[in-house]
Amino acid sequence: MTDNPLLALRERITALDIKLLDLLAERRGLALDVARAKLHTHRPIRDKARERDLLDALIDAGKQRNLDGFYITRLFQLIIEDSVLTQQALLQQQLNQTTVHSARIAFLGPKGSYSHLAARHYAARHFEQFVECGCLKFQDIFTQVETGQADYAVLPIENTSSGSINDVYDLLQHTSLSIVGELSTPIDHCVLVSTPTELSAIKTVYSHPQPFQQCTQFLNRFPDWKIEYCESTAAAMEKVAALNSPDVAALGSEAGGALYQLQVLEHKLANQQQNITRFIVLARKAIDVSEQVPAKTMLIMATGQQSGALVEALLVLREHGIVMTKLESRPIHGNPWEEMFYIDVQANLRSESMQKALRELAPITRSLKVLGCYPTENVVPVDPS
Amino acid sequence: MTDNPLLALRERITALDIKLLDLLAERRGLALDVARAKLHTHRPIRDKARERDLLDALIDAGKQRNLDGFYITRLFQLIIEDSVLTQQALLQQQLNQTTVHSARIAFLGPKGSYSHLAARHYAARHFEQFVECGCLKFQDIFTQVETGQADYAVLPIENTSSGSINDVYDLLQHTSLSIVGELSTPIDHCVLVSTPTELSAIKTVYSHPQPFQQCTQFLNRFPDWKIEYCESTAAAMEKVAALNSPDVAALGSEAGGALYQLQVLEHKLANQQQNITRFIVLARKAIDVSEQVPAKTMLIMATGQQSGALVEALLVLREHGIVMTKLESRPIHGNPWEEMFYIDVQANLRSESMQKALRELAPITRSLKVLGCYPTENVVPVDPS
Repeated sequence: MTDNPLLALRERITALDIKLLDLLAERRGLALDVARAKLHTHRPIRDKARERDLLDALIDAGKQRNLDGFYITRLFQLIIEDSVLTQQALLQQQLNQTTVHSARIAFLGPKGSYSHLAARHYAARHFEQFVECGCLKFQDIFTQVETGQADYAVLPIENTSSGSINDVYDLLQHTSLSIVGELSTPIDHCVLVSTPTELSAIKTVYSHPQPFQQCTQFLNRFPDWKIEYCESTAAAMEKVAALNSPDVAALGSEAGGALYQLQVLEHKLANQQQNITRFIVLARKAIDVSEQVPAKTMLIMATGQQSGALVEALLVLREHGIVMTKLESRPIHGNPWEEMFYIDVQANLRSESMQKALRELAPITRSLKVLGCYPTENVVPVDPS
Repeated sequence: MTDNPLLALRERITALDIKLLDLLAERRGLALDVARAKLHTHRPIRDKARERDLLDALIDAGKQRNLDGFYITRLFQLIIEDSVLTQQALLQQQLNQTTVHSARIAFLGPKGSYSHLAARHYAARHFEQFVECGCLKFQDIFTQVETGQADYAVLPIENTSSGSINDVYDLLQHTSLSIVGELSTPIDHCVLVSTPTELSAIKTVYSHPQPFQQCTQFLNRFPDWKIEYCESTAAAMEKVAALNSPDVAALGSEAGGALYQLQVLEHKLANQQQNITRFIVLARKAIDVSEQVPAKTMLIMATGQQSGALVEALLVLREHGIVMTKLESRPIHGNPWEEMFYIDVQANLRSESMQKALRELAPITRSLKVLGCYPTENVVPVDPS
């Protein structure tokens, strides 16, 4: 039995894929031209009606080519998202007069940590090159950027299954840094091994406590496995790579494991099917956000202790039509029973409504600080009509 | 200010998108040629090493064109998934000698229900044309297919946030139909309105109890809204379309709402970011699943009442290396304290290990029935190395 017909077909597929890449690159160039054309109008980057029309027309055209509408929708939602984010980045660069070619980015953990992958992801869209500064503690990440040893900090702030990351919220109270960006990345825990083996041959599993906690349903299937806790998933991978034995495994990400030459034995272990972590990006200098781009602002405030003080503050936001997307409270260190509130709003700091709200909040709060205004990178796709 | 440069750019983008479609259709054709070439080898349809090499090469080629690796990865994971499913469908058609051009599909609800959208999704990949048979009750769906008024039944079986759908499990006990397929679809609850309005202007919201329950965090922001329960999200949409007022809204899917000319005011309302429902597809005739394709089998069995009877049955599966993906128990109607077990396994019914396991299960169970063996449509993507 010869494979030759298969090989020839694969070569044709590869050649076709290169043509796809050429078109995608050309399309990104055209998206940039659109952004430049919009620069001096005040029209928002997103035009959902236009996106929907485009999608509807493509679905029709796809049908004539025997491509189903669901496939076309998912594919072009991604392509449109790329256009939107590419255009947003251009507008932001123009507004802030920044074109950063190389950046030093600080994040938690050795290579292969989820923070490392998030830093790479952010850098891939925003910088041509970047220098990786892995840190041991959240505090070190802040210090590196505050002292100028790094340019950006990438920090996890919340996870869909385990909630807010309190340590990071607490460090935000005292930092001089500003939030300049965000990104969300899916977390896919896998069983990673260094040498071909089987699940039934594994005796010891290494990981950080959080993946163990998020994968209990899977782990219950293997009651004999010995659980060993490590300070990070990356440390677990390093351990398993060093042991290089068929009876040990790490729980962590496939992309992280690849950096330690580990292979995936099993995928999607988490109890919750979708497990997403949101990261924020900080820098020394605050940025302006173009009004053509959707913005978010994070505030931190302490209210007086009279009853209803928080409600009064939230009413100010509502009166100005400002949508709050998250409210988190943390105790104030040294002042028991007093709380600091972290508030995420869908608003541009430069907007009139936000400026008015801040002026009204000042007299009714004991402290009020803007942690930063940044472009939203969460592009909610349009569906076809 | 003229829009002309923008219009010209948009025309170029549209022309480019058509070229993308042509290439995607050509790529699907090549994938079918690959499936035909593999038909007489016994190689599995998926070749993850080959997929990973392809992805790595595309990421490199993308970089030379200023396209970041994360974008390329997400895009080509979709394209590869389409190839895999297209090839699986061809192999299944060859094996079962079926090429169905038109099918009658029964599902729950009027147009716009989540079941309706799932039925359309399944049909888009499997049939050239299909006739929609909306039913009022789950029982009616079974009856329609059992009596030959419809060819396929599409039924929800579990949801990531609300769990198993017990009514469907109970009806599976007594049906003569076989499971022949599955699909998973994301559920995105939206605020749908019939006429331009604002969230603050809404007074009454209509929906099925389940979306209300899944969107409590969002609804807490609007304590004044009056909640009205309907028998389905589609019924809620119909109601809102009929009332046609700026102070009423429905919770439901964007695609469903579009069928009632409703617009989306707000997206992604569910507490859990990702909300996925798994559907099964039933037909009168069981199918064979090619051994080149990943298969799942669903069993239903009742064990004796002695202690350890279920464990004994599960040990049989484990001894034959059969991976169980779900175990659900339901009371047997009329026999209180007795339980029926529904077991999903990752195995082809025709495989030697499965046949052996079934022979060993027969003497230790009081009843044992195979509900069907079907190709898995859940293609877990490979990540780049």
